[in-house]
Amino acid sequence: MSNEDYAVDHRVNATDDAVHSAWDNGLEPVLTVEPGDVVQFECRDATDGQLDPDSTAADVAALDVDPVHPLTGPVAVDGARPGDVLRVDLLDLEHEGWGYTLVLPGELGLGLLPEAFPEPELYVWDLDGDVGRFANGIEVALAPFPGTIGVAPAADGAHDTNPPRSVGGNLDVKHLRAGSTLYLPVAVEDALFSVGDCHAAQGDGEVCVSGVEAPMTVTCRFDLQSGKSIEQPRFETTGPFTPTGRDEPTYGTTGIAADPLEATRAAIRHMIDHLHEDRGLSRSEAYVLCSAAVDLKISQAVNVPNWTVAAYLPESIFPET
Amino acid sequence: MSNEDYAVDHRVNATDDAVHSAWDNGLEPVLTVEPGDVVQFECRDATDGQLDPDSTAADVAALDVDPVHPLTGPVAVDGARPGDVLRVDLLDLEHEGWGYTLVLPGELGLGLLPEAFPEPELYVWDLDGDVGRFANGIEVALAPFPGTIGVAPAADGAHDTNPPRSVGGNLDVKHLRAGSTLYLPVAVEDALFSVGDCHAAQGDGEVCVSGVEAPMTVTCRFDLQSGKSIEQPRFETTGPFTPTGRDEPTYGTTGIAADPLEATRAAIRHMIDHLHEDRGLSRSEAYVLCSAAVDLKISQAVNVPNWTVAAYLPESIFPET
Repeated sequence: MSNEDYAVDHRVNATDDAVHSAWDNGLEPVLTVEPGDVVQFECRDATDGQLDPDSTAADVAALDVDPVHPLTGPVAVDGARPGDVLRVDLLDLEHEGWGYTLVLPGELGLGLLPEAFPEPELYVWDLDGDVGRFANGIEVALAPFPGTIGVAPAADGAHDTNPPRSVGGNLDVKHLRAGSTLYLPVAVEDALFSVGDCHAAQGDGEVCVSGVEAPMTVTCRFDLQSGKSIEQPRFETTGPFTPTGRDEPTYGTTGIAADPLEATRAAIRHMIDHLHEDRGLSRSEAYVLCSAAVDLKISQAVNVPNWTVAAYLPESIFPET
Repeated sequence: MSNEDYAVDHRVNATDDAVHSAWDNGLEPVLTVEPGDVVQFECRDATDGQLDPDSTAADVAALDVDPVHPLTGPVAVDGARPGDVLRVDLLDLEHEGWGYTLVLPGELGLGLLPEAFPEPELYVWDLDGDVGRFANGIEVALAPFPGTIGVAPAADGAHDTNPPRSVGGNLDVKHLRAGSTLYLPVAVEDALFSVGDCHAAQGDGEVCVSGVEAPMTVTCRFDLQSGKSIEQPRFETTGPFTPTGRDEPTYGTTGIAADPLEATRAAIRHMIDHLHEDRGLSRSEAYVLCSAAVDLKISQAVNVPNWTVAAYLPESIFPET
């Protein structure tokens, strides 16, 4: 939550006419706002309400993936022109007390380790204020942010919401929480901003293909900057830069390989080994926990031919023994 | 520096007979130690003394790369057997008051952006206690660590020190500072441990191909763990996980691309744009500063087909204006 005082100028409810599941610059805006306006967006969960706190892996297996990700908007920002920068101050994010992390490799082989985890899985989290509760007494500090946030692309037609693009979208930058500012390159007239796919927490990497997914309300303020273009999104944040928001005892694994994808996979495979062998989690619990609370860093990208990617697990998430 | 009390059992000076610049399980150990012993290693800088505080870019252009990286060792750990884990507690690292960051793309195209920075460059840092001083009044908190640390590989013959391997080596994990513990998979009898290539500071990614390179003395304690093998190095650390050791206002850029290398390059290109356009640094100063003080995170690796890699610049390194 931001410490800043603000008044909400507009609210967009997640009604069917204000929710879309593809990026498309031909969509009619649900609202036109002025620079400086504060807008509150009601955001559905990433499956568009197909899951609830009582759902199971069988419900994940039966998911219709077409509605993923339902985004609220688009909102037109009056005066925005291609080449401008849309400034988005993230003011507040409020969850509704529950969330989930799912594994769904599907036909696309989604997630970082689809061969190791071919079956659908679902873990429901109890979200209590600033804390999320997982299995085995594990508690993760919440740091809510919108996984998908962006503006309409220049190219006409419907664009899949899964990949992030230069105009933003499914960025999954976990530091875009309340108090941070995102800068987006405007590609079409009036920008056409949408947001959704909120995560109550996530590890850098989001390795199992989902964070702690949760329906949420997002409040942000818009502004425009002309005269200086950017190519891809930028941001200002004060962190926290660890899953717990503090420097603390942390267990690290490395992935060393010539291919950065293979190095990243190796770092996570080794962390799953650790969580399974030393912390007693099942391998799929471990995979999901990596997605929610383990951070991935590029330790080095220059020692040819091998990369070092490291995965960081904060030890405080475990109950004291 | 570690808060722990310890007594140094052995010291290995960086004399020619105790320095080698290739990994080779056929090297004669300079010393045999017992598990529990504390050993102090004098380590030369990565160029093996070819640069000093008065050197210039011309000296970088004339570098002989054969001696890179001079490692001190190998030290035999009595009783270590293939399949064991060598535990290395990093107790202390002491710099000598100066360091440097160089750009040397060379024939191999080293560094993350060799096409953008084809010329050799050299920046000498004044290291004063816990602070390193760069250009334009910029000060970076020091966090010394050994860039290269590992044991001899199983395969016979001489192995280049540039790539890290499963037995360690040029890991460039910046969190392996005093107070942390590294676990290395033992591949040959007596492990044959060596260390060198110390960095007084480094950003995750080490993008221009060097950190703040510095001659240094490294003190560590060895121990052995049997009965549980690991595939690649692991570690325990308390951070700090940001270049300054604290969560603070930070500017981020994103790199969005299907190829993780291209995404990483884009994030750094955008950060160089920012440092040049908004902070007044030359582009090569910016590239070098990214290598020393900008962290790379994998924000997500699963939103097919695009990765989000983000680069993080702490704002406190700049002088107050």
